[in-house]
Amino acid sequence: MELWFSENHTEDVKLSLRVNRQLYSKQSDYQRIDVFDTPEFGRVLALDGNIMLTERDEFIYDEMIVHVPMAVHPDITKVLVIGAGDGGVVRELTRYEQIRRIDLVEMDELVVEACRQYLTDNACRLDDERVHIYFENGLKFIRRCEEEYDLIIVDSNDPFGPSEGLFTREFYGNCYKALKKDGIMVNQQGSPFYAEDAHAMQRSHKRIASTFPISRVYQAHIPTYAAGYWLFGFASKKFHPIDDLDSAAWNAHHLRTRYYTTRLHIGAFYLPAFLERMLEEVE
Amino acid sequence: MELWFSENHTEDVKLSLRVNRQLYSKQSDYQRIDVFDTPEFGRVLALDGNIMLTERDEFIYDEMIVHVPMAVHPDITKVLVIGAGDGGVVRELTRYEQIRRIDLVEMDELVVEACRQYLTDNACRLDDERVHIYFENGLKFIRRCEEEYDLIIVDSNDPFGPSEGLFTREFYGNCYKALKKDGIMVNQQGSPFYAEDAHAMQRSHKRIASTFPISRVYQAHIPTYAAGYWLFGFASKKFHPIDDLDSAAWNAHHLRTRYYTTRLHIGAFYLPAFLERMLEEVE
Repeated sequence: MELWFSENHTEDVKLSLRVNRQLYSKQSDYQRIDVFDTPEFGRVLALDGNIMLTERDEFIYDEMIVHVPMAVHPDITKVLVIGAGDGGVVRELTRYEQIRRIDLVEMDELVVEACRQYLTDNACRLDDERVHIYFENGLKFIRRCEEEYDLIIVDSNDPFGPSEGLFTREFYGNCYKALKKDGIMVNQQGSPFYAEDAHAMQRSHKRIASTFPISRVYQAHIPTYAAGYWLFGFASKKFHPIDDLDSAAWNAHHLRTRYYTTRLHIGAFYLPAFLERMLEEVE
Repeated sequence: MELWFSENHTEDVKLSLRVNRQLYSKQSDYQRIDVFDTPEFGRVLALDGNIMLTERDEFIYDEMIVHVPMAVHPDITKVLVIGAGDGGVVRELTRYEQIRRIDLVEMDELVVEACRQYLTDNACRLDDERVHIYFENGLKFIRRCEEEYDLIIVDSNDPFGPSEGLFTREFYGNCYKALKKDGIMVNQQGSPFYAEDAHAMQRSHKRIASTFPISRVYQAHIPTYAAGYWLFGFASKKFHPIDDLDSAAWNAHHLRTRYYTTRLHIGAFYLPAFLERMLEEVE
Protein backbone atom coordinates (compact mmCIF):
# COMPACT_ATOMS: atom_id res chain seq x y z
CA MET A 1 0.00 0.00 0.00
CA GLU A 2 1.17 3.53 -0.76
CA LEU A 3 0.11 6.06 1.86
CA TRP A 4 1.24 9.66 1.38
CA PHE A 5 0.65 12.86 3.34
CA SER A 6 0.79 16.02 1.24
CA GLU A 7 0.94 19.61 2.35
CA ASN A 8 0.27 22.39 -0.10
CA HIS A 9 2.81 25.18 0.38
CA THR A 10 0.87 27.16 -2.20
CA GLU A 11 -1.95 26.10 -4.49
CA ASP A 12 0.70 25.08 -6.99
CA VAL A 13 3.42 23.45 -4.83
CA LYS A 14 3.20 20.56 -2.45
CA LEU A 15 5.53 18.51 -0.31
CA SER A 16 4.64 14.87 0.24
CA LEU A 17 5.91 12.40 2.82
CA ARG A 18 5.36 8.69 2.67
CA VAL A 19 3.44 7.49 5.72
CA ASN A 20 3.87 4.17 7.46
CA ARG A 21 0.90 4.52 9.74
CA GLN A 22 -1.47 7.10 11.14
CA LEU A 23 -1.34 6.98 14.94
CA TYR A 24 -3.73 9.67 16.09
CA SER A 25 -6.44 11.81 14.56
CA LYS A 26 -8.82 13.99 16.51
CA GLN A 27 -10.82 17.15 15.98
CA SER A 28 -10.35 19.44 18.98
CA ASP A 29 -12.36 22.58 19.64
CA TYR A 30 -9.77 24.49 17.61
CA GLN A 31 -8.28 22.28 14.95
CA ARG A 32 -7.73 18.82 13.53
CA ILE A 33 -4.76 17.08 15.13
CA ASP A 34 -2.93 14.22 13.40
CA VAL A 35 0.15 12.20 14.29
CA PHE A 36 1.69 9.72 11.88
CA ASP A 37 4.88 7.75 11.38
CA THR A 38 6.97 8.41 8.30
CA PRO A 39 10.11 6.59 7.13
CA GLU A 40 12.05 9.78 6.30
CA PHE A 41 11.03 12.23 9.04
CA GLY A 42 10.01 9.90 11.86
CA ARG A 43 6.89 10.90 13.70
CA VAL A 44 5.00 13.93 12.41
CA LEU A 45 2.50 16.26 14.08
CA ALA A 46 0.08 18.02 11.72
CA LEU A 47 -2.52 20.62 12.70
CA ASP A 48 -5.28 21.24 10.18
CA GLY A 49 -3.17 19.38 7.63
CA ASN A 50 -0.05 21.54 8.11
CA ILE A 51 3.14 19.99 9.45
CA MET A 52 3.93 21.49 12.85
CA LEU A 53 6.94 19.36 13.57
CA THR A 54 8.72 16.17 12.62
CA GLU A 55 11.06 14.18 14.84
CA ARG A 56 13.77 14.46 12.20
CA ASP A 57 13.98 18.25 11.84
CA GLU A 58 12.29 19.79 14.93
CA PHE A 59 15.73 20.38 16.49
CA ILE A 60 16.37 23.17 14.00
CA TYR A 61 13.27 25.15 14.93
CA ASP A 62 13.44 24.50 18.66
CA GLU A 63 17.16 25.27 18.98
CA MET A 64 16.94 28.44 16.91
CA ILE A 65 13.96 29.92 18.72
CA VAL A 66 15.50 29.26 22.17
CA HIS A 67 19.29 29.53 22.03
CA VAL A 68 19.49 32.76 20.03
CA PRO A 69 17.87 34.91 22.77
CA MET A 70 19.52 32.85 25.54
CA ALA A 71 22.98 33.65 24.14
CA VAL A 72 22.23 37.38 24.04
CA HIS A 73 20.45 38.21 27.31
CA PRO A 74 22.81 37.47 30.24
CA ASP A 75 20.19 36.82 32.91
CA ILE A 76 17.02 35.13 31.74
CA THR A 77 15.24 33.48 34.65
CA LYS A 78 11.53 33.77 33.84
CA VAL A 79 10.13 32.80 30.45
CA LEU A 80 6.70 32.86 28.86
CA VAL A 81 6.05 30.48 25.98
CA ILE A 82 2.88 30.97 23.93
CA GLY A 83 1.85 28.01 21.79
CA ALA A 84 4.40 25.20 21.50
CA GLY A 85 2.21 22.64 23.25
CA ASP A 86 4.40 19.91 21.76
CA GLY A 87 7.05 20.74 24.35
CA GLY A 88 10.10 21.16 22.11
CA VAL A 89 10.72 24.77 23.12
CA VAL A 90 10.26 23.92 26.80
CA ARG A 91 12.70 21.00 26.44
CA GLU A 92 15.43 23.35 25.16
CA LEU A 93 14.67 25.96 27.85
CA THR A 94 14.92 23.45 30.72
CA ARG A 95 18.54 22.78 29.74
CA TYR A 96 19.43 26.09 31.39
CA GLU A 97 19.78 25.84 35.16
CA GLN A 98 19.47 29.61 35.52
CA ILE A 99 15.83 29.51 34.37
CA ARG A 100 13.55 29.34 37.41
CA ARG A 101 10.11 29.48 35.84
CA ILE A 102 8.58 28.70 32.46
CA ASP A 103 4.93 29.58 31.86
CA LEU A 104 3.56 27.68 28.87
CA VAL A 105 0.27 28.97 27.49
CA GLU A 106 -1.28 26.55 25.02
CA MET A 107 -4.83 27.03 23.84
CA ASP A 108 -5.41 23.43 22.85
CA GLU A 109 -5.12 20.82 25.59
CA LEU A 110 -5.45 18.03 23.05
CA VAL A 111 -2.17 19.04 21.38
CA VAL A 112 -0.36 18.49 24.66
CA GLU A 113 -2.17 15.21 25.21
CA ALA A 114 -1.24 13.95 21.73
CA CYS A 115 2.41 14.96 22.13
CA ARG A 116 2.73 13.48 25.61
CA GLN A 117 1.56 10.20 24.14
CA TYR A 118 3.20 10.14 20.71
CA LEU A 119 6.00 12.74 20.60
CA THR A 120 7.79 11.98 23.82
CA ASP A 121 11.14 13.40 22.66
CA ASN A 122 9.43 16.78 22.47
CA ALA A 123 7.12 16.51 25.48
CA CYS A 124 9.78 14.94 27.73
CA ARG A 125 10.31 18.00 29.94
CA LEU A 126 6.74 19.24 30.31
CA ASP A 127 6.72 17.78 33.82
CA ASP A 128 9.82 19.71 34.91
CA GLU A 129 8.89 21.42 38.18
CA ARG A 130 9.72 24.86 36.74
CA VAL A 131 7.09 24.45 33.99
CA HIS A 132 3.55 25.75 34.55
CA ILE A 133 1.05 24.93 31.85
CA TYR A 134 -1.99 27.15 31.23
CA PHE A 135 -4.60 25.89 28.82
CA GLU A 136 -5.95 29.20 27.65
CA ASN A 137 -5.83 31.79 24.93
CA GLY A 138 -2.42 33.46 24.76
CA LEU A 139 -3.96 36.79 23.80
CA LYS A 140 -6.02 36.88 26.97
CA PHE A 141 -3.24 35.55 29.20
CA ILE A 142 -0.79 38.25 28.17
CA ARG A 143 -3.20 41.12 28.84
CA ARG A 144 -2.80 40.67 32.58
CA CYS A 145 1.03 40.54 32.59
CA GLU A 146 3.25 43.52 33.32
CA GLU A 147 7.08 43.67 33.44
CA GLU A 148 7.16 40.04 34.40
CA TYR A 149 9.23 38.13 31.88
CA ASP A 150 12.82 38.24 30.65
CA LEU A 151 11.89 36.33 27.51
CA ILE A 152 8.67 35.67 25.62
CA ILE A 153 8.68 33.01 22.92
CA VAL A 154 5.73 33.10 20.53
CA ASP A 155 5.60 29.72 18.86
CA SER A 156 2.38 30.22 16.97
CA ASN A 157 0.93 28.51 13.92
CA ASP A 158 0.62 30.41 10.68
CA PRO A 159 -1.12 33.81 10.74
CA PHE A 160 -4.21 32.29 9.14
CA GLY A 161 -6.79 30.51 11.28
CA PRO A 162 -6.74 30.01 15.06
CA SER A 163 -3.37 31.76 15.62
CA GLU A 164 -4.31 34.94 13.75
CA GLY A 165 -4.55 37.02 16.94
CA LEU A 166 -0.91 36.30 17.75
CA PHE A 167 0.17 38.44 14.81
CA THR A 168 -1.68 41.66 15.70
CA ARG A 169 -0.31 45.00 16.85
CA GLU A 170 -2.32 44.71 20.07
CA PHE A 171 -0.71 41.38 20.88
CA TYR A 172 2.82 42.64 20.26
CA GLY A 173 2.07 45.68 22.41
CA ASN A 174 0.96 43.41 25.23
CA CYS A 175 4.12 41.35 24.88
CA TYR A 176 6.14 44.56 25.18
CA LYS A 177 4.25 45.43 28.36
CA ALA A 178 4.69 41.93 29.79
CA LEU A 179 8.47 42.05 29.36
CA LYS A 180 10.88 43.46 31.89
CA LYS A 181 12.88 46.55 30.94
CA ASP A 182 15.55 44.51 29.18
CA GLY A 183 13.25 41.77 27.88
CA ILE A 184 13.32 39.96 24.53
CA MET A 185 10.48 38.56 22.43
CA VAL A 186 11.22 35.92 19.81
CA ASN A 187 8.56 34.70 17.41
CA GLN A 188 8.25 32.52 14.34
CA GLN A 189 7.98 34.79 11.33
CA GLY A 190 7.10 32.35 8.59
CA SER A 191 8.80 32.01 5.23
CA PRO A 192 9.71 34.84 2.85
CA PHE A 193 9.59 32.85 -0.36
CA TYR A 194 6.03 32.33 -1.55
CA ALA A 195 4.04 35.52 -2.09
CA GLU A 196 1.29 34.97 0.49
CA ASP A 197 3.80 33.96 3.18
CA ALA A 198 6.03 36.91 2.32
CA HIS A 199 3.20 39.42 2.71
CA ALA A 200 2.20 37.98 6.08
CA MET A 201 5.84 38.13 7.19
CA GLN A 202 6.15 41.77 6.13
CA ARG A 203 2.93 42.71 7.88
CA SER A 204 3.99 41.09 11.10
CA HIS A 205 7.53 42.53 10.93
CA LYS A 206 6.09 46.00 10.42
CA ARG A 207 3.98 45.67 13.55
CA ILE A 208 6.87 44.37 15.66
CA ALA A 209 9.29 47.00 14.35
CA SER A 210 6.86 49.75 15.33
CA THR A 211 6.48 48.29 18.85
CA PHE A 212 10.08 47.44 19.84
CA PRO A 213 13.17 49.65 19.57
CA ILE A 214 15.23 46.71 18.26
CA SER A 215 13.65 44.35 15.74
CA ARG A 216 15.62 41.96 13.55
CA VAL A 217 14.83 38.87 11.53
CA TYR A 218 16.92 35.71 11.43
CA GLN A 219 16.74 32.57 9.34
CA ALA A 220 17.11 28.79 9.38
CA HIS A 221 16.85 25.89 6.95
CA ILE A 222 13.85 23.76 7.95
CA PRO A 223 13.21 21.09 5.30
CA THR A 224 9.54 20.40 6.09
CA TYR A 225 8.44 24.05 6.19
CA ALA A 226 7.45 26.11 3.14
CA ALA A 227 10.37 26.46 0.72
CA GLY A 228 12.62 24.91 3.40
CA TYR A 229 13.35 28.45 4.51
CA TRP A 230 12.07 29.79 7.82
CA LEU A 231 12.35 33.09 9.67
CA PHE A 232 12.25 34.18 13.28
CA GLY A 233 11.71 37.65 14.70
CA PHE A 234 14.03 38.96 17.42
CA ALA A 235 12.44 41.97 19.17
CA SER A 236 14.11 43.57 22.11
CA LYS A 237 13.96 46.53 24.47
CA LYS A 238 17.70 46.73 25.08
CA PHE A 239 19.86 43.91 23.78
CA HIS A 240 21.11 43.75 20.20
CA PRO A 241 21.10 40.23 18.74
CA ILE A 242 24.68 40.38 17.42
CA ASP A 243 26.42 43.16 19.34
CA ASP A 244 25.28 41.68 22.66
CA LEU A 245 25.90 38.05 21.78
CA ASP A 246 28.14 36.61 24.51
CA SER A 247 29.63 33.57 22.80
CA ALA A 248 31.99 32.70 25.63
CA ALA A 249 29.19 32.71 28.20
CA TRP A 250 26.93 30.58 26.04
CA ASN A 251 29.65 28.11 25.17
CA ALA A 252 30.46 27.78 28.89
CA HIS A 253 27.05 26.08 29.31
CA HIS A 254 28.46 23.17 27.27
CA LEU A 255 25.10 22.40 25.70
CA ARG A 256 25.41 19.93 22.86
CA THR A 257 23.33 21.23 19.99
CA ARG A 258 22.75 19.89 16.50
CA TYR A 259 22.00 23.13 14.65
CA TYR A 260 22.78 26.17 16.78
CA THR A 261 26.33 27.42 17.28
CA THR A 262 27.37 30.93 18.34
CA ARG A 263 29.02 31.37 14.94
CA LEU A 264 25.87 30.30 13.11
CA HIS A 265 23.97 32.70 15.38
CA ILE A 266 25.69 35.61 13.65
CA GLY A 267 25.27 34.19 10.14
CA ALA A 268 21.54 33.64 10.79
CA PHE A 269 21.09 37.43 10.80
CA TYR A 270 22.95 37.92 7.48
CA LEU A 271 20.00 37.78 5.11
CA PRO A 272 19.70 37.51 1.33
CA ALA A 273 19.39 40.77 -0.60
CA PHE A 274 15.75 40.17 -1.60
CA LEU A 275 14.77 39.66 2.03
CA GLU A 276 16.69 42.73 3.24
CA ARG A 277 14.70 44.75 0.72
CA MET A 278 11.37 43.24 1.83
CA LEU A 279 12.11 44.14 5.44
CA GLU A 280 13.33 47.66 4.62
CA GLU A 281 10.09 48.31 2.76
CA VAL A 282 8.12 48.05 5.99
CA GLU A 283 10.61 49.34 8.56
CA MET B 1 -7.00 19.25 -15.96
CA GLU B 2 -4.49 18.77 -13.16
CA LEU B 3 -0.93 18.29 -14.39
CA TRP B 4 1.80 17.87 -11.76
CA PHE B 5 5.54 17.27 -11.96
CA SER B 6 6.98 15.41 -8.98
CA GLU B 7 10.58 14.91 -8.01
CA ASN B 8 11.50 12.33 -5.41
CA HIS B 9 14.09 13.76 -3.04
CA THR B 10 14.28 10.34 -1.43
CA GLU B 11 12.10 7.28 -1.92
CA ASP B 12 9.87 8.66 0.81
CA VAL B 13 9.74 12.41 0.10
CA LYS B 14 8.70 14.26 -3.00
CA LEU B 15 8.21 17.83 -4.10
CA SER B 16 5.48 18.50 -6.66
CA LEU B 17 4.90 21.52 -8.87
CA ARG B 18 1.73 22.19 -10.78
CA VAL B 19 2.43 22.38 -14.51
CA ASN B 20 0.68 24.60 -17.01
CA ARG B 21 2.22 23.08 -20.08
CA GLN B 22 5.13 20.94 -21.17
CA LEU B 23 7.18 22.82 -23.77
CA TYR B 24 10.03 20.52 -24.65
CA SER B 25 10.91 16.88 -24.14
CA LYS B 26 13.82 15.12 -25.82
CA GLN B 27 16.10 12.22 -25.10
CA SER B 28 19.69 13.27 -25.86
CA ASP B 29 22.66 10.90 -26.00
CA TYR B 30 23.11 11.51 -22.27
CA GLN B 31 19.79 12.21 -20.61
CA ARG B 32 16.15 13.11 -20.91
CA ILE B 33 15.61 16.87 -21.16
CA ASP B 34 12.28 18.51 -20.25
CA VAL B 35 11.13 22.10 -20.08
CA PHE B 36 7.74 23.06 -18.70
CA ASP B 37 5.84 26.09 -17.49
CA THR B 38 4.65 26.20 -13.89
CA PRO B 39 2.53 28.85 -12.16
CA GLU B 40 4.72 29.07 -9.03
CA PHE B 41 8.26 28.70 -10.35
CA GLY B 42 7.93 29.89 -13.94
CA ARG B 43 9.75 27.84 -16.50
CA VAL B 44 11.54 24.71 -15.27
CA LEU B 45 14.38 22.66 -16.75
CA ALA B 46 14.50 19.01 -15.67
CA LEU B 47 17.20 16.49 -16.59
CA ASP B 48 16.27 12.84 -16.13
CA GLY B 49 13.32 14.00 -14.05
CA ASN B 50 15.40 16.13 -11.62
CA ILE B 51 14.89 19.88 -11.48
CA MET B 52 18.04 21.62 -12.69
CA LEU B 53 16.67 25.12 -12.47
CA THR B 54 13.52 27.16 -12.30
CA GLU B 55 13.16 30.77 -13.44
CA ARG B 56 11.92 31.69 -9.98
CA ASP B 57 14.85 30.51 -7.86
CA GLU B 58 17.84 30.06 -10.22
CA PHE B 59 19.22 33.42 -9.10
CA ILE B 60 20.15 31.92 -5.75
CA TYR B 61 22.29 29.15 -7.20
CA ASP B 62 23.84 31.23 -9.98
CA GLU B 63 24.69 34.19 -7.77
CA MET B 64 26.15 32.07 -4.99
CA ILE B 65 28.38 29.94 -7.23
CA VAL B 66 29.77 33.02 -9.06
CA HIS B 67 29.94 36.01 -6.70
CA VAL B 68 31.50 34.22 -3.73
CA PRO B 69 34.80 33.47 -5.53
CA MET B 70 34.65 36.77 -7.46
CA ALA B 71 34.55 38.73 -4.18
CA VAL B 72 37.58 36.86 -2.81
CA HIS B 73 40.10 36.66 -5.68
CA PRO B 74 41.12 40.18 -6.73
CA ASP B 75 42.07 39.46 -10.30
CA ILE B 76 40.01 36.82 -12.06
CA THR B 77 40.28 37.20 -15.83
CA LYS B 78 40.03 33.66 -17.20
CA VAL B 79 37.32 31.26 -16.10
CA LEU B 80 36.45 27.67 -16.90
CA VAL B 81 32.86 26.55 -16.39
CA ILE B 82 32.09 22.83 -16.52
CA GLY B 83 28.45 21.93 -17.01
CA ALA B 84 25.97 24.80 -16.68
CA GLY B 85 24.81 24.61 -20.28
CA ASP B 86 21.73 26.62 -19.29
CA GLY B 87 23.89 29.75 -19.22
CA GLY B 88 22.99 31.11 -15.77
CA VAL B 89 26.56 30.93 -14.45
CA VAL B 90 27.91 32.51 -17.64
CA ARG B 91 25.32 35.30 -17.37
CA GLU B 92 26.56 36.23 -13.88
CA LEU B 93 30.22 36.00 -14.94
CA THR B 94 29.75 38.32 -17.94
CA ARG B 95 28.67 41.08 -15.55
CA TYR B 96 32.35 41.53 -14.65
CA GLU B 97 34.24 43.62 -17.16
CA GLN B 98 37.57 42.35 -15.85
CA ILE B 99 36.82 38.84 -17.13
CA ARG B 100 38.36 38.38 -20.56
CA ARG B 101 37.59 34.77 -21.36
CA ILE B 102 35.03 32.20 -20.24
CA ASP B 103 35.39 28.62 -21.47
CA LEU B 104 32.14 26.72 -21.07
CA VAL B 105 32.42 22.95 -21.37
CA GLU B 106 29.03 21.27 -21.65
CA MET B 107 28.73 17.64 -22.61
CA ASP B 108 25.20 17.85 -23.92
CA GLU B 109 24.58 20.19 -26.85
CA LEU B 110 20.82 19.65 -26.58
CA VAL B 111 20.76 21.27 -23.11
CA VAL B 112 22.16 24.46 -24.60
CA GLU B 113 19.73 24.25 -27.51
CA ALA B 114 16.73 23.83 -25.19
CA CYS B 115 17.82 26.73 -22.94
CA ARG B 116 18.56 29.07 -25.85
CA GLN B 117 15.01 28.46 -27.00
CA TYR B 118 13.06 28.26 -23.74
CA LEU B 119 15.15 29.71 -20.91
CA THR B 120 16.35 32.90 -22.47
CA ASP B 121 16.88 34.68 -19.14
CA ASN B 122 19.56 32.11 -18.42
CA ALA B 123 21.01 31.66 -21.89
CA CYS B 124 20.99 35.39 -22.69
CA ARG B 125 24.78 35.87 -22.50
CA LEU B 126 25.98 32.69 -24.16
CA ASP B 127 26.75 34.75 -27.28
CA ASP B 128 28.97 37.21 -25.40
CA GLU B 129 32.22 37.38 -27.38
CA ARG B 130 34.25 36.33 -24.34
CA VAL B 131 32.36 33.03 -24.10
CA HIS B 132 33.73 29.93 -25.87
CA ILE B 133 31.53 26.88 -25.79
CA TYR B 134 33.01 23.38 -26.04
CA PHE B 135 30.60 20.50 -26.43
CA GLU B 136 32.68 17.80 -24.86
CA ASN B 137 33.29 15.83 -21.73
CA GLY B 138 34.61 18.05 -18.91
CA LEU B 139 36.82 15.25 -17.60
CA LYS B 140 38.67 14.98 -20.89
CA PHE B 141 38.81 18.74 -21.47
CA ILE B 142 40.49 19.43 -18.15
CA ARG B 143 43.24 16.84 -18.64
CA ARG B 144 44.94 19.06 -21.22
CA CYS B 145 44.88 22.26 -19.13
CA GLU B 146 47.78 23.48 -17.01
CA GLU B 147 47.98 26.67 -14.88
CA GLU B 148 45.52 28.33 -17.17
CA TYR B 149 42.51 29.48 -15.14
CA ASP B 150 41.94 31.85 -12.24
CA LEU B 151 38.59 30.24 -11.47
CA ILE B 152 36.97 26.91 -12.28
CA ILE B 153 33.25 26.52 -11.64
CA VAL B 154 31.98 22.96 -11.61
CA ASP B 155 28.24 23.17 -12.10
CA SER B 156 27.57 19.47 -12.37
CA ASN B 157 24.44 17.39 -11.88
CA ASP B 158 24.21 15.04 -8.96
CA PRO B 159 27.02 12.55 -8.42
CA PHE B 160 24.85 9.71 -9.72
CA GLY B 161 24.56 9.15 -13.47
CA PRO B 162 26.28 11.09 -16.27
CA SER B 163 28.05 13.58 -13.97
CA GLU B 164 29.63 10.94 -11.74
CA GLY B 165 33.14 11.53 -13.11
CA LEU B 166 33.04 15.16 -11.96
CA PHE B 167 33.16 14.01 -8.33
CA THR B 168 36.32 11.87 -8.51
CA ARG B 169 39.74 12.47 -6.99
CA GLU B 170 41.29 12.37 -10.47
CA PHE B 171 39.00 15.15 -11.67
CA TYR B 172 39.71 17.40 -8.67
CA GLY B 173 43.44 16.78 -9.17
CA ASN B 174 43.13 17.88 -12.79
CA CYS B 175 41.24 21.01 -11.71
CA TYR B 176 44.08 21.79 -9.30
CA LYS B 177 46.57 21.42 -12.15
CA ALA B 178 44.46 23.56 -14.50
CA LEU B 179 44.36 26.46 -12.02
CA LYS B 180 46.95 29.16 -11.76
CA LYS B 181 49.01 29.41 -8.56
CA ASP B 182 46.33 31.45 -6.79
CA GLY B 183 43.32 29.82 -8.45
CA ILE B 184 39.95 28.89 -6.94
CA MET B 185 37.60 26.02 -7.72
CA VAL B 186 33.93 26.27 -6.74
CA ASN B 187 31.58 23.35 -7.14
CA GLN B 188 28.05 22.37 -6.22
CA GLN B 189 28.23 20.03 -3.25
CA GLY B 190 24.65 18.83 -2.96
CA SER B 191 22.50 18.79 0.12
CA PRO B 192 23.53 17.55 3.59
CA PHE B 193 20.08 16.60 4.81
CA TYR B 194 18.95 13.27 3.40
CA ALA B 195 21.29 10.35 4.11
CA GLU B 196 22.25 9.45 0.54
CA ASP B 197 22.94 13.10 -0.37
CA ALA B 198 24.91 13.61 2.83
CA HIS B 199 27.20 10.64 2.14
CA ALA B 200 27.88 11.84 -1.40
CA MET B 201 28.66 15.31 -0.06
CA GLN B 202 31.08 13.92 2.52
CA ARG B 203 32.84 11.74 -0.06
CA SER B 204 33.30 14.64 -2.41
CA HIS B 205 34.40 17.04 0.34
CA LYS B 206 37.00 14.50 1.49
CA ARG B 207 38.46 14.29 -2.01
CA ILE B 208 38.58 18.06 -2.44
CA ALA B 209 40.04 18.64 1.04
CA SER B 210 42.86 16.19 0.26
CA THR B 211 43.62 17.97 -3.03
CA PHE B 212 43.49 21.69 -2.11
CA PRO B 213 45.20 23.42 0.85
CA ILE B 214 42.03 25.45 1.55
CA SER B 215 38.67 23.73 1.33
CA ARG B 216 35.47 25.10 2.82
CA VAL B 217 31.77 24.50 2.35
CA TYR B 218 29.10 27.19 2.11
CA GLN B 219 25.32 27.10 2.01
CA ALA B 220 22.22 28.63 0.45
CA HIS B 221 18.45 28.20 0.65
CA ILE B 222 17.24 26.85 -2.71
CA PRO B 223 13.54 25.95 -2.49
CA THR B 224 13.38 23.50 -5.40
CA TYR B 225 16.45 21.47 -4.41
CA ALA B 226 16.44 18.60 -1.91
CA ALA B 227 15.39 19.77 1.56
CA GLY B 228 15.64 23.38 0.26
CA TYR B 229 19.20 23.35 1.54
CA TRP B 230 22.14 23.40 -0.84
CA LEU B 231 25.91 23.43 -0.45
CA PHE B 232 28.84 24.67 -2.48
CA GLY B 233 32.51 23.77 -2.15
CA PHE B 234 35.14 26.52 -2.12
CA ALA B 235 38.60 25.06 -2.83
CA SER B 236 41.59 27.29 -3.18
CA LYS B 237 45.36 27.33 -3.53
CA LYS B 238 45.90 30.63 -1.75
CA PHE B 239 42.82 32.72 -0.95
CA HIS B 240 40.70 32.16 2.14
CA PRO B 241 36.96 32.59 1.51
CA ILE B 242 36.38 34.90 4.50
CA ASP B 243 39.78 36.35 5.44
CA ASP B 244 40.40 37.40 1.84
CA LEU B 245 36.91 38.66 1.11
CA ASP B 246 37.25 42.23 -0.18
CA SER B 247 33.78 43.64 0.45
CA ALA B 248 34.66 47.18 -0.58
CA ALA B 249 36.09 46.06 -3.92
CA TRP B 250 33.11 43.85 -4.69
CA ASN B 251 30.58 46.50 -3.72
CA ALA B 252 32.41 48.98 -5.96
CA HIS B 253 31.21 46.90 -8.94
CA HIS B 254 27.66 48.05 -8.10
CA LEU B 255 26.14 44.79 -9.25
CA ARG B 256 22.50 44.51 -8.27
CA THR B 257 21.95 41.05 -6.85
CA ARG B 258 18.89 39.41 -5.40
CA TYR B 259 20.52 36.89 -3.05
CA TYR B 260 24.25 37.57 -2.68
CA THR B 261 25.58 40.33 -0.45
CA THR B 262 29.08 40.56 1.02
CA ARG B 263 27.55 40.20 4.48
CA LEU B 264 25.61 37.10 3.49
CA HIS B 265 28.87 35.82 1.96
CA ILE B 266 30.31 35.51 5.47
CA GLY B 267 27.18 34.00 6.98
CA ALA B 268 27.05 31.40 4.21
CA PHE B 269 30.20 29.80 5.68
CA TYR B 270 28.75 29.66 9.24
CA LEU B 271 27.30 26.17 9.15
CA PRO B 272 24.96 24.27 11.46
CA ALA B 273 26.57 22.08 14.12
CA PHE B 274 25.49 18.80 12.47
CA LEU B 275 27.10 19.82 9.19
CA GLU B 276 30.33 20.99 10.85
CA ARG B 277 30.59 17.53 12.41
CA MET B 278 29.92 15.77 9.09
CA LEU B 279 32.70 17.75 7.42
CA GLU B 280 35.17 17.28 10.29
CA GLU B 281 34.64 13.51 10.06
CA VAL B 282 36.23 13.46 6.62
CA GLU B 283 38.76 16.30 6.84
